[in-house]
Amino acid sequence: MIRLVAFDADDTLWHNERLFVHVQERFRALLGEYTGGDVIEQRLYETEVANLRHYGYGVKSFTLSMIETAVDLTEGRIRGSDIEAILHLGREMLLAPVDILDGVRNVIIEIGRRHDLMVLTKGDLIDQESKVARSGLGDLFTHVEVVSRKDRATYERVIDQHGLEPSEFVMVGNSLRSDIIPVAEMGAHAIHVPYETTWQHEHVADDDLDGLAFHSVPDLRLVPAVIATLA
Amino acid sequence: MIRLVAFDADDTLWHNERLFVHVQERFRALLGEYTGGDVIEQRLYETEVANLRHYGYGVKSFTLSMIETAVDLTEGRIRGSDIEAILHLGREMLLAPVDILDGVRNVIIEIGRRHDLMVLTKGDLIDQESKVARSGLGDLFTHVEVVSRKDRATYERVIDQHGLEPSEFVMVGNSLRSDIIPVAEMGAHAIHVPYETTWQHEHVADDDLDGLAFHSVPDLRLVPAVIATLA
Repeated sequence: MIRLVAFDADDTLWHNERLFVHVQERFRALLGEYTGGDVIEQRLYETEVANLRHYGYGVKSFTLSMIETAVDLTEGRIRGSDIEAILHLGREMLLAPVDILDGVRNVIIEIGRRHDLMVLTKGDLIDQESKVARSGLGDLFTHVEVVSRKDRATYERVIDQHGLEPSEFVMVGNSLRSDIIPVAEMGAHAIHVPYETTWQHEHVADDDLDGLAFHSVPDLRLVPAVIATLA
Repeated sequence: MIRLVAFDADDTLWHNERLFVHVQERFRALLGEYTGGDVIEQRLYETEVANLRHYGYGVKSFTLSMIETAVDLTEGRIRGSDIEAILHLGREMLLAPVDILDGVRNVIIEIGRRHDLMVLTKGDLIDQESKVARSGLGDLFTHVEVVSRKDRATYERVIDQHGLEPSEFVMVGNSLRSDIIPVAEMGAHAIHVPYETTWQHEHVADDDLDGLAFHSVPDLRLVPAVIATLA
């Protein structure tokens, strides 16, 4: 029996990576005046990944990494007004409308008729809570949990807190690394719904999937049918 | 019967405000070269409070507010190397040793013999989780919950999730505004342990306490005795 269905949020319930890609383009344009464009994105990515351990995920971390990259690549020549422009880019991201993926609302309502629902998302606490609220979907979920990482220990804690066996838990998400692999490894159900793009840091090697059982569907609207086969 | 005792973390289990005060002094020294010192702290405070709604609490928010204040007060004349210095201040805060208040460990162990224990802290998710881990106290607590705000709705959600009545819940903390008032208002037990200093934003007016029943002790080591009278 399935008792709890958890959904990842960014790029599963609503568009997110698009916003980062768009802001990165504007960041590149802003720094283009100081330095050659080719290196900008790679350096920003390296800075982000190096900072993950201290800053975690989310818009505030990304903004700090943009500022660090800007100072670094311009060798300190960046003007105060351009630092201000980067702060504005970050604030725009925090306030951007939450653009829900097609069909999400009906899928959530349908699954919610039979199962408890959770948003289980990695990232910055206030940022993720704010997106849940702005999405208008919050009331459809029994639980909203923001975690700093999605590894097997995190999922084990979640099912333990809800008094569940792995077989009673389903995770739905777009990231093989965060939503699927650790869930499949602990013997719970995982349903992969790929998004149009995947952040470089979330890519996994093919052999990381060896021997793991999970479902994959091209569209969230197919998830209720998969869950029906599990129940 | 008392079933769950929750502790605030910053300035209840370990020193925190000290670190912010110390970093603010260095920030003031850094900007002193550009502008008169008197206005710096006030402007930083105003920027922090204005940003709370978007950024929430924590070191990343504070770092972004320092950068914004620096650009603003220097009218954009701030040098890249000084922006870098501010980023370093933030990173130092994230890596600073967790300086536990006197007697905390024994108090936690003593209370934990009879009751479930929780860390219930407001702030940045990864930052607070990292401090719990670095404090070496994490294993003494059954639950660690990081929340974006500590209002009555938050406390009601927490006791609801644990299937508790208000009378079965005790909150221990240094902030009247965050740890005591909302808890006393919902009819649960609140024990105030003031810290040496209080962040301006956490100050409350005397009449906000009118008619509220709570305990206040000058030292965390007196908390077990208060809890014994409740049980």
